[in-house]
Amino acid sequence: MKLSLNTATVKRASLAQAAQLCVENGITGIGPWRDAVEAAGGAGAVRKLFDSHGLTVTSLCRGGFFQLGLDDTRRAIEEAATLGTRELILVVGGMPDGSKDLPAARRVVADSIEALVPYAVQHDVRLAIEPLHPMFCADRAVVSTLGQALDIAEPFAPHEVGVVVDTYHVWWDPQLPAQIARAGDRIASYQVCDWVVPLPEDMLLGRGHVGDGHIDFPAITGAVRRAGYDGYVEVEIFNQSIWDTDPATTVATVAQRWPLVGV
Amino acid sequence: MKLSLNTATVKRASLAQAAQLCVENGITGIGPWRDAVEAAGGAGAVRKLFDSHGLTVTSLCRGGFFQLGLDDTRRAIEEAATLGTRELILVVGGMPDGSKDLPAARRVVADSIEALVPYAVQHDVRLAIEPLHPMFCADRAVVSTLGQALDIAEPFAPHEVGVVVDTYHVWWDPQLPAQIARAGDRIASYQVCDWVVPLPEDMLLGRGHVGDGHIDFPAITGAVRRAGYDGYVEVEIFNQSIWDTDPATTVATVAQRWPLVGV
Repeated sequence: MKLSLNTATVKRASLAQAAQLCVENGITGIGPWRDAVEAAGGAGAVRKLFDSHGLTVTSLCRGGFFQLGLDDTRRAIEEAATLGTRELILVVGGMPDGSKDLPAARRVVADSIEALVPYAVQHDVRLAIEPLHPMFCADRAVVSTLGQALDIAEPFAPHEVGVVVDTYHVWWDPQLPAQIARAGDRIASYQVCDWVVPLPEDMLLGRGHVGDGHIDFPAITGAVRRAGYDGYVEVEIFNQSIWDTDPATTVATVAQRWPLVGV
Repeated sequence: MKLSLNTATVKRASLAQAAQLCVENGITGIGPWRDAVEAAGGAGAVRKLFDSHGLTVTSLCRGGFFQLGLDDTRRAIEEAATLGTRELILVVGGMPDGSKDLPAARRVVADSIEALVPYAVQHDVRLAIEPLHPMFCADRAVVSTLGQALDIAEPFAPHEVGVVVDTYHVWWDPQLPAQIARAGDRIASYQVCDWVVPLPEDMLLGRGHVGDGHIDFPAITGAVRRAGYDGYVEVEIFNQSIWDTDPATTVATVAQRWPLVGV
C-alpha cells in the first residue's frame, strides 16, 4: 500500500500547493474534494495539474446526501470520471429536519444507490459507501457501520458498489475484523486518522494525526490487507488546529507518521 | 411499563427533593446515582427516604470502570442490595491512558464481570451492562453495542447478568430490533432520552427531553415490550441547560412527555 493525501487534511492549501507538497514529500497519491476541484478550475484542469505532478487520483470526495436528490451525485460521478479515479466516496446524508424515521432514511439510501448504479457503471466509476461514526447518524450519514454498508452494497457487483474503511469512523466496532474480511474486494478506499479525546465542540473536527490517539492502526491495516486490499491509503484529517498549521508542516507530518500505519 | 425518574436528570436536587417531586408528579419509580445516595446519608437512609414516599428503586447507577479494579463495584453491589434494587448498572470504562489495545480493554470487562458475578448473586443483585454510544468508546465504555453487551452476558444466567437499553446510546444501531429481541429477559433497565443535534462541546451533556430530537420512541419501546420487558422506564437526561432549570419544572416536563415514550 502507498500513501495518498486527502486534500481535506490541508484545507487551506490550493490543489496546486497540495500537489507540490505531495511531490516534495514523496507522496504519489492524492484524493481531492469537489469544492477544491471547482476552485481549481474544474475536473479537467485538475486532472492536468495532477498528471503534471505524476499523482494518482485515489478517490473523489464526495457524492451522497441523498435526501436532497440524486443530481449532485450524478455530477460527482462525471467529475470522478474526468479526474481519472474509479472511486467516488458517498457520505449518504442524515435524517430530514424533524424526522424520527430512521428506517425510512435508510431506505432512501438503498433506493438512491440502486438508481445511480447504471450511471456510475456507464462512467466506469464505483459508488463507495462510507459508513460514518454513529455520532453523525442524525445529521450526516444514516449508514453507521461497515456491516450496514456491506448490506446495502451486496445486491451489486463489487466493481459497482464498494465501501470505505475510515479508521476514525469504524475503529470502535466489535464486528470490524469480521466485516473487513467480508468486504474483500469491495474495499474502495482505506482512510486513516486517529481518535483523540476529548472531542472538540464541532465533532467533525476532532481527528488527529496517525499516532496521536487510541487507534491501533497496524491491526486494522492488517485486516484490510488480508481482505485483499493493496491500494492507496488516504490520510484524511479534519482538525481546526491542523488546518491552522502551515500546510507544508502538516504534509511533512503526514509523511513522517506513515510508518505508524503499519502497511 | 411505568415511569421512573433517574436522579441524574435533576442533578441539582437533593434526593429528598427528587422524591417529593416524584410524588407530586405521580411518578412511582426512582433510579438514584451513588454520589447522590452518599450525599443523602448512604444507602440505608435513602431506602427509608424512598420507602416513606412509596417509591420503587428501579436501578442504581453505577458500577464499572473496571480498569480501576473491582472494589468500587463490590461496594456498589452492597449499596444496591441495601437500597432494595436488583439492578446495578455498569458503565464498564474506557481504555487506559495511552493505550491502543481495544481488544485487551474489552477482555478486562468480560473478566471483571465473571469475577463479580458470585458476589452479585450472593447479594441478589444483577449486573446490568450498559452499552454506551460508540463516541464514548475510548474514554467511558468499551462496550459500544447491545449485541456486544449480550455477547458478554451470554455465559451467565439472565438473572445474573443483564443489559441496559438506553435509547440515547443505541438508537442508531441497524441491529437494534434484532438485539432487543435477543436480549429478552436480560433487559434489566430501559432508559430514555432524546438525541438532539448539534451536540454540545461536552458530549456527555447532549441529551434532550423525550420528543425534542430524532429518536422514534414508540418503535424502540415496542421492541422492548415484545422482548418481554414490563418494568419501569427511567428518564435519564444529562444536559446542562436542563440541570440549570428548576428541578420542579424538569420533573413536570418529564411527566408531561411520558406519553411520547409510547408504552
